[in-house]
Amino acid sequence: MSHPFDAAIALRPRGDGVFDGATHAGYANMVGPFGGITASTLLHAVWLHPQRLGEPLALTVNFAGPVVEGPFRVTTRALRTNRSTQHWHIELEQGGEVAASASAVFGLRRDTWTATEIVPPPLAQGAPVPVKGLSPRVAWPQRYDMQFVKGGWPDFDNPQAEPADSHSELWIRDHPPRPLDALALAAICDAFYPRIFRRRQRFTPAGTMTLSTYFHADAAALAAQGTRAVLGRARAQHFGGGYFDQTAEVWGDGGRLLAVSHQLVYFKE
Amino acid sequence: MSHPFDAAIALRPRGDGVFDGATHAGYANMVGPFGGITASTLLHAVWLHPQRLGEPLALTVNFAGPVVEGPFRVTTRALRTNRSTQHWHIELEQGGEVAASASAVFGLRRDTWTATEIVPPPLAQGAPVPVKGLSPRVAWPQRYDMQFVKGGWPDFDNPQAEPADSHSELWIRDHPPRPLDALALAAICDAFYPRIFRRRQRFTPAGTMTLSTYFHADAAALAAQGTRAVLGRARAQHFGGGYFDQTAEVWGDGGRLLAVSHQLVYFKE
Repeated sequence: MSHPFDAAIALRPRGDGVFDGATHAGYANMVGPFGGITASTLLHAVWLHPQRLGEPLALTVNFAGPVVEGPFRVTTRALRTNRSTQHWHIELEQGGEVAASASAVFGLRRDTWTATEIVPPPLAQGAPVPVKGLSPRVAWPQRYDMQFVKGGWPDFDNPQAEPADSHSELWIRDHPPRPLDALALAAICDAFYPRIFRRRQRFTPAGTMTLSTYFHADAAALAAQGTRAVLGRARAQHFGGGYFDQTAEVWGDGGRLLAVSHQLVYFKE
Repeated sequence: MSHPFDAAIALRPRGDGVFDGATHAGYANMVGPFGGITASTLLHAVWLHPQRLGEPLALTVNFAGPVVEGPFRVTTRALRTNRSTQHWHIELEQGGEVAASASAVFGLRRDTWTATEIVPPPLAQGAPVPVKGLSPRVAWPQRYDMQFVKGGWPDFDNPQAEPADSHSELWIRDHPPRPLDALALAAICDAFYPRIFRRRQRFTPAGTMTLSTYFHADAAALAAQGTRAVLGRARAQHFGGGYFDQTAEVWGDGGRLLAVSHQLVYFKE
């Protein structure tokens, strides 16, 4: 029996870079699927493409409109293939409309000088925090084992005082456990709930408009992480005008930075 | 006489969202044009489109291949228009090949709760730092008045000791002065030289592969900045495998965050 993550990102190739997929109730969000699973699905389409060069380096997903429950079509197009890098454009269509688009940069990595300038969060024991006050259709948080060190899910029914910042730190892995790869990592990078929930401690409609992820670890390094939880940190930079941006880091064993991600989110207030 | 920036991003509409443009020697980089001017040009195409909704909220530019000196064609396509947001796909072609692609999110802003979590660099006097050791064809730094507070251009002929971090802080504005708008801001967000230059204090081929910018100020706030310099801060997060990411903030008068940007850069070592 396949892992729910693999079932959710499954695609049936129709040739010429076109793939058929369908939403998965196990990753449902308030409206449509969890953005992270859509991101992974679009990345997966390129991953399955016979002309793919190397591994994912960067992925930007634009959430253009609601994805509704049911089947969708993913179309991939290699815009340009260089000696060591390759640029892709991807679109997800439903009912003749574009519901999401993406660009992906794939490529080969080489041994070079290496350095990490940012520092990982302190290693600390986390604890589970129940998800409360969200619609029962929101299933995707149950697809992760999240152990919060700080900034756990707010309880909208019993709001706490507004914190001074929107930071969260947590241990996270797929539930049930699944060996880490770039596809799973792409979804984990979007698994930090909207920072406006944390700052305001109350529910407001919010949705990611665009999400960019940079992959800093190759397949071997991700495989070495196995099913062990990664340490994530997320925070907002600015809220205003109906939009905010949030940024995230995902750290693996030994303080290795696996990926960073950035997103711009719509919110109602 | 038009400002060199406006001459560089000028586009001739050919109908159906297609525009003709050309590179401008004043913004030349090592290979092809300065990435920031390409980003502004692609944003400009949407700006000029009769179906544009609102102002730029986010822009991701993928530098797929070299842009050579001469004319190019820009094709824009509105993927989806919602009530208050709009998603665009943009391609820049030369000689029948895609040299750059982009996604842009445009939309309307509303009055909402506002907060900025990151803090601006301390206000400090900057000083100009000459650009040395780069090819004489690299003209774009002369299109900016840059006053460095820290992390100025390295002198590749007289390298300093490698610093512990890649941070730069500088006052920057167009040269000659030009009133700020989102188009100019999009270019300024890419005006922080590759962080590998600073860390290693020596020249290495490096080029942006993908650049995402989030606009946090509306047209009125940018117009209010006028021709006064903005305060920029840039830093890398991780170098390795032939790639690094760098992130930047651009601050206006009164500690107002105007934009943030993130990019993944190829480097040779």
